[in-house]
Amino acid sequence: MLKGISNRISPDLIKVLMEMGHGDELVLADGNFPAASHAKRLVRCDGHAIPELMADILSLLPVDANAKHAFALMKVDPGDPAETPIWEQYRAIAAEHSGNDQPFEQMERQAFYDRVKNAYAVVATSESALYANLIIRKGVI
Amino acid sequence: MLKGISNRISPDLIKVLMEMGHGDELVLADGNFPAASHAKRLVRCDGHAIPELMADILSLLPVDANAKHAFALMKVDPGDPAETPIWEQYRAIAAEHSGNDQPFEQMERQAFYDRVKNAYAVVATSESALYANLIIRKGVI
Amino acid sequence: MLKGISNRISPDLIKVLMEMGHGDELVLADGNFPAASHAKRLVRCDGHAIPELMADILSLLPVDANAKHAFALMKVDPGDPAETPIWEQYRAIAAEHSGNDQPFEQMERQAFYDRVKNAYAVVATSESALYANLIIRKGVI
Amino acid sequence: MLKGISNRISPDLIKVLMEMGHGDELVLADGNFPAASHAKRLVRCDGHAIPELMADILSLLPVDANAKHAFALMKVDPGDPAETPIWEQYRAIAAEHSGNDQPFEQMERQAFYDRVKNAYAVVATSESALYANLIIRKGVI
Amino acid sequence: MLKGISNRISPDLIKVLMEMGHGDELVLADGNFPAASHAKRLVRCDGHAIPELMADILSLLPVDANAKHAFALMKVDPGDPAETPIWEQYRAIAAEHSGNDQPFEQMERQAFYDRVKNAYAVVATSESALYANLIIRKGVI
Amino acid sequence: MLKGISNRISPDLIKVLMEMGHGDELVLADGNFPAASHAKRLVRCDGHAIPELMADILSLLPVDANAKHAFALMKVDPGDPAETPIWEQYRAIAAEHSGNDQPFEQMERQAFYDRVKNAYAVVATSESALYANLIIRKGVI
Amino acid sequence: MLKGISNRISPDLIKVLMEMGHGDELVLADGNFPAASHAKRLVRCDGHAIPELMADILSLLPVDANAKHAFALMKVDPGDPAETPIWEQYRAIAAEHSGNDQPFEQMERQAFYDRVKNAYAVVATSESALYANLIIRKGVI
Amino acid sequence: MLKGISNRISPDLIKVLMEMGHGDELVLADGNFPAASHAKRLVRCDGHAIPELMADILSLLPVDANAKHAFALMKVDPGDPAETPIWEQYRAIAAEHSGNDQPFEQMERQAFYDRVKNAYAVVATSESALYANLIIRKGVI
Amino acid sequence: MLKGISNRISPDLIKVLMEMGHGDELVLADGNFPAASHAKRLVRCDGHAIPELMADILSLLPVDANAKHAFALMKVDPGDPAETPIWEQYRAIAAEHSGNDQPFEQMERQAFYDRVKNAYAVVATSESALYANLIIRKGVI
Amino acid sequence: MLKGISNRISPDLIKVLMEMGHGDELVLADGNFPAASHAKRLVRCDGHAIPELMADILSLLPVDANAKHAFALMKVDPGDPAETPIWEQYRAIAAEHSGNDQPFEQMERQAFYDRVKNAYAVVATSESALYANLIIRKGVI
Repeated sequence: MLKGISNRISPDLIKVLMEMGHGDELVLADGNFPAASHAKRLVRCDGHAIPELMADILSLLPVDANAKHAFALMKVDPGDPAETPIWEQYRAIAAEHSGNDQPFEQMERQAFYDRVKNAYAVVATSESALYANLIIRKGVI
Repeated sequence: MLKGISNRISPDLIKVLMEMGHGDELVLADGNFPAASHAKRLVRCDGHAIPELMADILSLLPVDANAKHAFALMKVDPGDPAETPIWEQYRAIAAEHSGNDQPFEQMERQAFYDRVKNAYAVVATSESALYANLIIRKGVI
Repeated sequence: MLKGISNRISPDLIKVLMEMGHGDELVLADGNFPAASHAKRLVRCDGHAIPELMADILSLLPVDANAKHAFALMKVDPGDPAETPIWEQYRAIAAEHSGNDQPFEQMERQAFYDRVKNAYAVVATSESALYANLIIRKGVI
Repeated sequence: MLKGISNRISPDLIKVLMEMGHGDELVLADGNFPAASHAKRLVRCDGHAIPELMADILSLLPVDANAKHAFALMKVDPGDPAETPIWEQYRAIAAEHSGNDQPFEQMERQAFYDRVKNAYAVVATSESALYANLIIRKGVI
Repeated sequence: MLKGISNRISPDLIKVLMEMGHGDELVLADGNFPAASHAKRLVRCDGHAIPELMADILSLLPVDANAKHAFALMKVDPGDPAETPIWEQYRAIAAEHSGNDQPFEQMERQAFYDRVKNAYAVVATSESALYANLIIRKGVI
Repeated sequence: MLKGISNRISPDLIKVLMEMGHGDELVLADGNFPAASHAKRLVRCDGHAIPELMADILSLLPVDANAKHAFALMKVDPGDPAETPIWEQYRAIAAEHSGNDQPFEQMERQAFYDRVKNAYAVVATSESALYANLIIRKGVI
Repeated sequence: MLKGISNRISPDLIKVLMEMGHGDELVLADGNFPAASHAKRLVRCDGHAIPELMADILSLLPVDANAKHAFALMKVDPGDPAETPIWEQYRAIAAEHSGNDQPFEQMERQAFYDRVKNAYAVVATSESALYANLIIRKGVI
Repeated sequence: MLKGISNRISPDLIKVLMEMGHGDELVLADGNFPAASHAKRLVRCDGHAIPELMADILSLLPVDANAKHAFALMKVDPGDPAETPIWEQYRAIAAEHSGNDQPFEQMERQAFYDRVKNAYAVVATSESALYANLIIRKGVI
Repeated sequence: MLKGISNRISPDLIKVLMEMGHGDELVLADGNFPAASHAKRLVRCDGHAIPELMADILSLLPVDANAKHAFALMKVDPGDPAETPIWEQYRAIAAEHSGNDQPFEQMERQAFYDRVKNAYAVVATSESALYANLIIRKGVI
Repeated sequence: MLKGISNRISPDLIKVLMEMGHGDELVLADGNFPAASHAKRLVRCDGHAIPELMADILSLLPVDANAKHAFALMKVDPGDPAETPIWEQYRAIAAEHSGNDQPFEQMERQAFYDRVKNAYAVVATSESALYANLIIRKGVI
């Protein structure tokens, strides 16, 4: 534990966050996402939901103000009646840290998965909400 | 995630729990414990308190019914006025899983540290209570 | 050994099962299958037949209820008079755990082999029945 | 699988058996034995009982005819009323392969554990009988 | 050394033979073959000729009875007057173990090299006969 | 780079700082100190002086308020006329972060070296001042 | 530290510089560059600006006098009003060491990134100037 | 050191020479060649010129008598007035060991570099002559 | 294979022989010796007898002319009627290479085993003669 | 190769020299010294004599001006009539770089060997002179 850093941030996670550069992407994967098979680098955060972790990360990680969308979500599959209330939580947290209240790009499932494979790292959480996977693009300091 | 297993239990943690045998010991270390420098095998559970994790673990791990004390705590240092209310939580959880309501041995600080060095694994939590470190001795099935 | 988990499940196997996510596939390979040459990750279960192991695994691993077929078998080669009585055993076990009594897709040999190469892991058993290889697709919890 | 070799013998196990020399010892550990913490080299045989495995191994591994006792068992703890019927199975299998019907040395618990730490390898089985751990000393060909 | 297994078979070689499955191929390479640069897995048997080793291996390894040719040789290069008397030795050994007296496919040099690159393992021998490289295809038990 | 963390702190250094627990020690070694031969874990900070790095580290790392001396210096060798003005800089930085203006223990050269060997990590700087090596003992949060 | 070599040059960096040959390229990346995701080999120089490091490196590393441009910069993106005063510093340092006062090639962002991926190594600095990334092509001695 | 083998041949080099087979190629690279970036396997011989090393190697390594050219050189670049007197030394050494006085193929720079990437190993020397890189093709014994 | 070196000498073995220096010892272990458990470095020569290998090695390896005994044998155990005709073969080979016809020291079993543990390397052969283990002490060139 | 650094200094050697600190020792071992068995870290310089290498190293490495003797030699064994003319070469080189013309300590053989085991690194040369091993103690910059 260190002063001013949430104890949800593990030593491996902070090292990965610090190694990332402008344009590198971090994936916060929900508890059912096939994280180990899609990640170049895998950081496990078992037992944690995404919103608290997202807030902890954004207090350290600058988001890409240059990009049209600094965050990406997986679009609801056609025909799926699922609701995505967690997106509102994400929006509030993102807005607080990036000053942008429309920062989310929505991607179809397969395109989202392909983008995850190129991300710098995937954080495997236990988030149980539907369509809760989130990509964050790092900006500059 | 697997059916019937808490999502606080990571893949590395369940592997360690399963590898342990009769008499091997597991340490649940609080957030300030020097876990990395004292562990033969280290499993990180950043951001988690011990009571929930202890209960999750005991639903899988049999405790040593043969041993006089299947659990060990670090005794309050002489002269330290600290209270240890978390021990009551531990006692309730231990009693529920082991059927023994006086299962705790108390050890002086240095003896406790030496025993940790011989334990099979140390789980690094973020528990913030005082004198919250806990050793569990595995039993038989 | 852990409470409530079959001792046929090794520490490596349970770790792999837990790491898998929605859509990741597990192969239960028979004793003659070229498992080591086709597996991304190999878990050996020498000396065991598939049905008991399949049941042990499905008591932990959710199958993909979204997929049309959560299981895949290798189709009998054209002209091969072999019978496949083990498929009935598989069907009963699958039905018990997935509530679907027609869950099997049949694939031609080469297509089956190619799919194995992309699976998350292959479990090398000593099953001696013919056409006994089985692919299981993980679902959500 | 190979001709004439039981499929309970894994590739890792046969490699270990072949590497051993005169006087090296192999431990067949029961399902509760702390194998991972006591083994120089660990071979897992999850889900298997010891008698069948012992017979498979002795069909390949010569036992030490020079030693007074080519096998060692852990003595029943003083005061423990446990019976050890599995020893009769061991005796029959040992006699068949070594031609010696009194080949067993009995050792107290701690001495047995210390000897395990010096053994060439430990085979972790799921044997559930009491006092079922067995040390085999390799002989010459 | 183990009972009933030739001491020319090293621990690494028997492990590789056992790991192979139906359709996996093993290459016995002569002393001048570029084994290290063409092998996925390399097992060295320096100082040994191929016929004795081939016989030792076939006493353990089932050959593929389904394949038209369970063995492959490298065809004599066009214009090369070399004789290949060692093929007769191979034929006798193969016939004894596979019951097939015409089991050999002959391949042109480059096709043979390409096939070696996909083989499960290459055994580097010191065989000095010409055109002595041999591919063996594993069958079922 | 991360928000609010000095860019002198490398990804490896912050990981080490976070892994440390109560009582673990960190050594800031000057440019001539034999860091690589005395460190359990080595983090290089070539080209940097100690005072700035010490301040960066103390903004993250809590010092041990329980210990009589949370910092240790190497005593000037008997007979050496060297002055140690850098100690004043250390004192000011330590006082600012620990609220203790007499936090330094002085140790003889050999005792200091022995303590370094037990420290959690050594940071190899390029500090050129004399007697500039510094040990910091981590506290609790 | 060694005689005549700047202490900003770490042991890993000098090893990399020495291993490079004619035509191999070194990238000095600024503090926001995604160095870890683009580097074949990564050397960290956290906390340092590029000009001093560039001068230190060029006092050891010969630049490619045969190449039309021994250095490459990333061109200012179209429409970006950013100024690049650091280029003048680079020009002065390059001229001093290579005797060429027009040594810089300018490349568009994506082409620059692609070239970085093929470079021998990337040095991750904390340079904060804009458009400060620099590629150096090694020459002969 | 061994009897009858030059002390310029290091343990790693002789191992590589012995592992090579018929048709595998060895590159003797001059001091400026980008050896580390082009080599599948790299053996360093810092401080040595090529002629002595070439002679030492050819006293052990048979050259390919079947190939039209058992050696390859890099052709002088068009327009480069450089002389290549070292080629005469190479010719004399090659002739002495291979009995062929016209054994050299000349290749254009880029084709030479591509061939190096496929060679079995590259030996990094400190040869300072121009156009001194040399490829040797191993023959049979 | 290399010119003038027996093909019984593997790439790993020649590397080990070359790395050894004055006073380092090599053990030629018979087929039943517990080589893997006693060796700092293990080189396998399965299927080979010791005399031919000893001669091959001594054609490369200088023996220690300064030592009173450059070779050591394991003394016949008290009461064991075994004959050791292989020692005469060893004596002839040693005499031919070292010019010393009384070079053998005889050691009791346990002392011999302890010395093996300190040897530079152990060569595991398949020699079947009794009391055939041999230690060779390297000399100077 | 780098500007101003001898090409006898390999990338591994310069890295080791730079990592060493005040009081760390470097051993220049002659061609018969058992370097691999006595070295914590081994750097090979096959084919090179010590005097040139010593001079190259001392142009980079400061020697310990505080130590009574910054260099150590192995004393001639009692009764050995060997001469040690190479010591004069060492003395001249040492004097030129350290300004001390009596810098050598002489140690008996066993004490010298023990000190080598604690040295930071051993450089294995091919020096053929008698009693040519040399220990250098690094100083400060």
